[in-house]
Amino acid sequence: MPASYAYLGPEGTFTEVALRTLPETATRELVPYVSVQSALDAVRTGEAEAAFVPIENSVEGGITTTLDELVAGQPLMIYREVLLSITFALLVRPGTKLSDIKTVTAHPAAQPQVRNWLKAHLPDAAWESAASNADGARLVQEGRYDAAFAGEFAAERYGLEVLEADIHDAENAQTRFVLVGRPARPAAPTGADKTSVVLWQRDDHPGGLRDLLGEFATRGVNLMLLQSRPTGAGIGNYCFCIDAEGHISDRRVADALMGLKRSCLQVRYLGSYPRAEVAPADVAALRPGTSDEAFVAAADWVARCQDGRF
Amino acid sequence: MPASYAYLGPEGTFTEVALRTLPETATRELVPYVSVQSALDAVRTGEAEAAFVPIENSVEGGITTTLDELVAGQPLMIYREVLLSITFALLVRPGTKLSDIKTVTAHPAAQPQVRNWLKAHLPDAAWESAASNADGARLVQEGRYDAAFAGEFAAERYGLEVLEADIHDAENAQTRFVLVGRPARPAAPTGADKTSVVLWQRDDHPGGLRDLLGEFATRGVNLMLLQSRPTGAGIGNYCFCIDAEGHISDRRVADALMGLKRSCLQVRYLGSYPRAEVAPADVAALRPGTSDEAFVAAADWVARCQDGRF
Amino acid sequence: MPASYAYLGPEGTFTEVALRTLPETATRELVPYVSVQSALDAVRTGEAEAAFVPIENSVEGGITTTLDELVAGQPLMIYREVLLSITFALLVRPGTKLSDIKTVTAHPAAQPQVRNWLKAHLPDAAWESAASNADGARLVQEGRYDAAFAGEFAAERYGLEVLEADIHDAENAQTRFVLVGRPARPAAPTGADKTSVVLWQRDDHPGGLRDLLGEFATRGVNLMLLQSRPTGAGIGNYCFCIDAEGHISDRRVADALMGLKRSCLQVRYLGSYPRAEVAPADVAALRPGTSDEAFVAAADWVARCQDGRF
Amino acid sequence: MPASYAYLGPEGTFTEVALRTLPETATRELVPYVSVQSALDAVRTGEAEAAFVPIENSVEGGITTTLDELVAGQPLMIYREVLLSITFALLVRPGTKLSDIKTVTAHPAAQPQVRNWLKAHLPDAAWESAASNADGARLVQEGRYDAAFAGEFAAERYGLEVLEADIHDAENAQTRFVLVGRPARPAAPTGADKTSVVLWQRDDHPGGLRDLLGEFATRGVNLMLLQSRPTGAGIGNYCFCIDAEGHISDRRVADALMGLKRSCLQVRYLGSYPRAEVAPADVAALRPGTSDEAFVAAADWVARCQDGRF
Repeated sequence: MPASYAYLGPEGTFTEVALRTLPETATRELVPYVSVQSALDAVRTGEAEAAFVPIENSVEGGITTTLDELVAGQPLMIYREVLLSITFALLVRPGTKLSDIKTVTAHPAAQPQVRNWLKAHLPDAAWESAASNADGARLVQEGRYDAAFAGEFAAERYGLEVLEADIHDAENAQTRFVLVGRPARPAAPTGADKTSVVLWQRDDHPGGLRDLLGEFATRGVNLMLLQSRPTGAGIGNYCFCIDAEGHISDRRVADALMGLKRSCLQVRYLGSYPRAEVAPADVAALRPGTSDEAFVAAADWVARCQDGRF
Repeated sequence: MPASYAYLGPEGTFTEVALRTLPETATRELVPYVSVQSALDAVRTGEAEAAFVPIENSVEGGITTTLDELVAGQPLMIYREVLLSITFALLVRPGTKLSDIKTVTAHPAAQPQVRNWLKAHLPDAAWESAASNADGARLVQEGRYDAAFAGEFAAERYGLEVLEADIHDAENAQTRFVLVGRPARPAAPTGADKTSVVLWQRDDHPGGLRDLLGEFATRGVNLMLLQSRPTGAGIGNYCFCIDAEGHISDRRVADALMGLKRSCLQVRYLGSYPRAEVAPADVAALRPGTSDEAFVAAADWVARCQDGRF
Repeated sequence: MPASYAYLGPEGTFTEVALRTLPETATRELVPYVSVQSALDAVRTGEAEAAFVPIENSVEGGITTTLDELVAGQPLMIYREVLLSITFALLVRPGTKLSDIKTVTAHPAAQPQVRNWLKAHLPDAAWESAASNADGARLVQEGRYDAAFAGEFAAERYGLEVLEADIHDAENAQTRFVLVGRPARPAAPTGADKTSVVLWQRDDHPGGLRDLLGEFATRGVNLMLLQSRPTGAGIGNYCFCIDAEGHISDRRVADALMGLKRSCLQVRYLGSYPRAEVAPADVAALRPGTSDEAFVAAADWVARCQDGRF
Repeated sequence: MPASYAYLGPEGTFTEVALRTLPETATRELVPYVSVQSALDAVRTGEAEAAFVPIENSVEGGITTTLDELVAGQPLMIYREVLLSITFALLVRPGTKLSDIKTVTAHPAAQPQVRNWLKAHLPDAAWESAASNADGARLVQEGRYDAAFAGEFAAERYGLEVLEADIHDAENAQTRFVLVGRPARPAAPTGADKTSVVLWQRDDHPGGLRDLLGEFATRGVNLMLLQSRPTGAGIGNYCFCIDAEGHISDRRVADALMGLKRSCLQVRYLGSYPRAEVAPADVAALRPGTSDEAFVAAADWVARCQDGRF
């Protein structure tokens, strides 16, 4: 029985397209799930080896469903990330003209990316939410709605026609997906890595969050994402999902995590994995004193001082 | 023609209930709008005096639609906030029994708050999203679905029966609503106020966000909300919606805002208004050196030094 | 009666040489005093318009006598600074040879600068402290000691011969002198200015001093001197004499001083005056957001927000 | 041959009195040296096991001669500190009356502590500096001066009479002495310890020193002394002598030292030793997250994350 990867279905969505960019999918069974929650539960129960879900997009920001699933429950770990450029096509049944369209559908997440196009070209069309973009396409195929916004690749699957391609309100619209599995030793650093953690503050005082971010800053670790999520303890109570540059095996990252572990009420490690958007050669130079060598030399120096050999 | 308040409709939702807690609604026409965007647009165009929309809830965190509307476009200002405890009732047509329920509906935002209850009591019911909880109730009235999650107050309006009341996965589930208008002089401070701003970082370097938060921390200003939102400039580009304790007419807050204005690429002021959750008497004591008197004395001292009178 | 400048005497010392570099000394009576204390007292009593005293040298650091006089007592203000390169000559009565020298004298402050030379050339000579270098030269003239270290310019005045010139252990040995008067409006900024203050911490906790220095750092104000001095309240109790780049009429400096005034137990302003070591053209560029324009724009923006005009 | 302790002589000074409070002096030969430099050189050459020298007093602050010797040259280490309250006696030849006194002598360091007394009781007496207070007493014995300020204990040794005892301008005048030896493993922590280091900044930028002090602050390590000393690289170039609470075997101190080692151009460790002024029971409580246990737990957690066991 081949190992399987769960993913946020249905088939024919951007998620599947992104997932298939991972070479190892050639040897995995790819199983669509109806929700992020169910895909991640499949990992937690052992039904799937890993799950592939969207975690951030350039229009909506952090995907809160995914973040909330990672923040709570049995620990999971991010192994990989994939960035996919997102543009929509307007799909219709063959023969439909723009002027025929009275209803359009898509997943609600598509709305911000097509809003302006709609206002300009179909100001009077009624919007109907679909469970997914692929599902919207299916509903058009079935005749329930007149047009669907979906990835161009969905046209063929559902026997639809592309009336307009490359629709995107925001330039550089992208979605970031992650491959999530059960905790294990993170893959070796590549030189262009990212580490994800969740922080819960110990208490709330002026400067509390500033000081936590200082644990990264003083080690020269840049932040790439800071997303607050409710802790469930009532309004105004947040934890922080953070992506930081570097790998947990980088001394500066490990040292920052130790500082956070001491200063926070709780820290959840979500993994260290290669950055999708940048090659090792293009990673910004480290600030002086934050290389592994500097950390090793400093630890060695303190050990010699402790021994009186200085 | 009376001034009107736009609100996120339809009628019979939590939003309307929260809005009616404001005394001035007695003399306003309250007009439901189909979306946060359209309600805020009504303010921008002058069609409405103000709009009342949800901005944060204890389960979902910041309401991104509202935040994104405040972050971009013609400037708006928050005048008031209202906190409402949210619990759901399961509404059915009279006579329906729990075992009869095959389909349930509600606005997607209700889902995290009823998820566990559903799993426990209606594990096999199909979930159908509604445009609003009130709309879900209407669809149950019309016979399209078997049951709706909505505020108990919606039962009467739609001729439904409360099969189960007070459903809430999270204790202390609350939603925060804001009354938003065009920019004007903020109301005078009450002693328990909140100031909302949006920050765009000038550049991205280790410690950048830490230093911005330091502008609050060094003036003893506590943060109550930090919510990142995409700037639209591509994935990983965020601005930060921040709620800070205090009023812009408090010197420590004004001083922090000046520091941010200098340090940030851009700052958008979203208003200073009374805090809903705390009375002036219960506000935490100021840190020494951060009272208005301390600021005035310090400014006076520097002026005397500049004049040689010290 | 011409205005007089007190200076640390006697005549014929480096102090007098440095003082005479100030053009206005041409129209002042220059009066030597026996100590820094008495020279500054002459200013405090009105006997002298100003006093000229050493405040820092490259070998000894801050001149504690001067700092302590500025820190305590009736407030004084620094108007000018002068930097003088210090090298010593070995002065002897005409005819004395190196091998004749059994005793050498100078002010104790000269010792660190001639120590190595003495060890190399006169290892067996006995050192005798003099009240000043000029006084040492006088004692050699009188035959009490064999040789004196003093400025080369002292030879002529005391009828001595230069046996060796340009003696200095440390390259770039310099002394910084200040012209001190009663408080008045500081001279206009030149573009290369320095501001001196004394800080007393409100309390002592981890990070206390770090946070005070942060008042400068967050406004992009560089520090040029940080010298701790006992407060007189017992061992371990210190105040901090600080020289910072910029003029009190620079907004970033004024703002930092206001922050310090609020955060400190006490701040004493000691003046803003032109930097001796650097021309305006060579001053480092300001950090973005710390120019006067940035401060004015930020204050204006906050005022507009307070007025609702944004 | 018994091991010997060098100390700043001559015999009969406060230094010797302080030294004799150390129990181990009973089994050591105590050898006076003419200067701090020569006493420390005796340690460096192996001539003495350790040297005992003043390092800080409540009137003058850090003793710069001692600090400069520790900062430069072959590394030394502080093993112990002793605090001694300093009050002066006015010593005269038997029979001398106050009105007979025309000249007084003492080491220049005594001057600030007797200045006010002199002004009040002997305003016309001439001050003559002595190489030490004991030496001043000797010169009075020999008839060269009329009176000497010295420790009361010096009267007997030099056959003098105490004309006035307990003279001190500053209440709580104290001098701190240190026992300095060659580097070795520091003594075990007592629970009330102090760690001394010297820091050289890597470069000079706004916030540079603030960030270095932050290495202590973020680990909850309080500073007890910060004394700048010239580096010898020209005026305005300073290193910083720092005393911090805690022992190098305390994890928070070791961690701060590692941070400094990475961030500084250079760090010199000067030892960890028991605090003289406070008992372990009276040491302030640690900030949460800075105990050894917190450090060990954090390091263990990071190791488990690195291994995938979380």
